[in-house]
Amino acid sequence: MVSRMADCIFCKIIKGAIPSFKLYESERVLAFLDIEPLAQGHALVIPKHHGAKLTDIPDDQLGEMMPVAKKLANAMGGENYNILQNNGRLAHQVVDHVHFHVIPKPDQEQGLGITWPAKKADMEKLKEYFNDVKAKI
Amino acid sequence: MVSRMADCIFCKIIKGAIPSFKLYESERVLAFLDIEPLAQGHALVIPKHHGAKLTDIPDDQLGEMMPVAKKLANAMGGENYNILQNNGRLAHQVVDHVHFHVIPKPDQEQGLGITWPAKKADMEKLKEYFNDVKAKI
Repeated sequence: MVSRMADCIFCKIIKGAIPSFKLYESERVLAFLDIEPLAQGHALVIPKHHGAKLTDIPDDQLGEMMPVAKKLANAMGGENYNILQNNGRLAHQVVDHVHFHVIPKPDQEQGLGITWPAKKADMEKLKEYFNDVKAKI
Repeated sequence: MVSRMADCIFCKIIKGAIPSFKLYESERVLAFLDIEPLAQGHALVIPKHHGAKLTDIPDDQLGEMMPVAKKLANAMGGENYNILQNNGRLAHQVVDHVHFHVIPKPDQEQGLGITWPAKKADMEKLKEYFNDVKAKI
C-alpha cells in the first residue's frame, strides 16, 4: 500500500489545514472526534508520524496510543466500547494513516458491529505454526 | 463488571498454571496464540496487571501493548490484519482481563467480521458533545 503524506487527510488535520474537534494533543499523538461516528463519542487516536500500518509507526508513538485511548474512555464514561485499528483494505482500513478508533457501544444498533467466525484450532497444526512464527520474533 | 483474579483464565496463563503458546513476554506484558482463532496467527497481547477494562490498566503496561502487537504483526507478515480490544459484554468482551486481539485477515471468510453503521454527524450537536467531553479530559 503506497500512501502519500501530501494527500493525507489526517496529516492535514495534524497541521491544522483541516479543522477538527481536538480532544488531546501531545508532541507525538493527536486525538479528535470522528465526524462520521458509529455512535456518539466515536473518536480517533493517531500518531503524528505518517505511516499506513501499525508496523510503519515508531514504538515511542505507538506507546502513547493506549494511554490516550484510556483518557478518552474515562472522559466519555460509557460501560461498553471497542478499540479498533484496521490494517489494509480487506481489514476495513480506509485512510492510509494509522488510526485507533475508540467506539462507544451504547446499544446493539449503534457502535461497532462484530462477527466472530472462530474455530477450535487443530493443536498439532497450531504448534507447528507457533514454532514457525516464534522463530521470527 | 466484577472480575475475580483467582478465577481469571488469563491470570492462570500468566502464572503458567495453564499452558499457552507464548510468543513474547516481558515484566509487564504477555503475548500468546488464541486457541480458538478467527484465522491462523490470531494472537492476544495482555497486560500482567489484572483488570477488566482499558481504564483499569496502568499506563506503563498499556504503553507496551502496541509495540508488542507490532512485533507480532511483523513476525506474521500478512498484509491485512485488525487490532481489537473489547470492553463490556455489549462490546463483545468475554474474558474480564484486558486483551488486545491481533487478527490476520487473509480473506473475506476468515478473520474479524466488521459492520460499520456510520452516520454523518449533526455538526451542531457534535460541537455541543465536544465541549462537554473536552472539559473532562
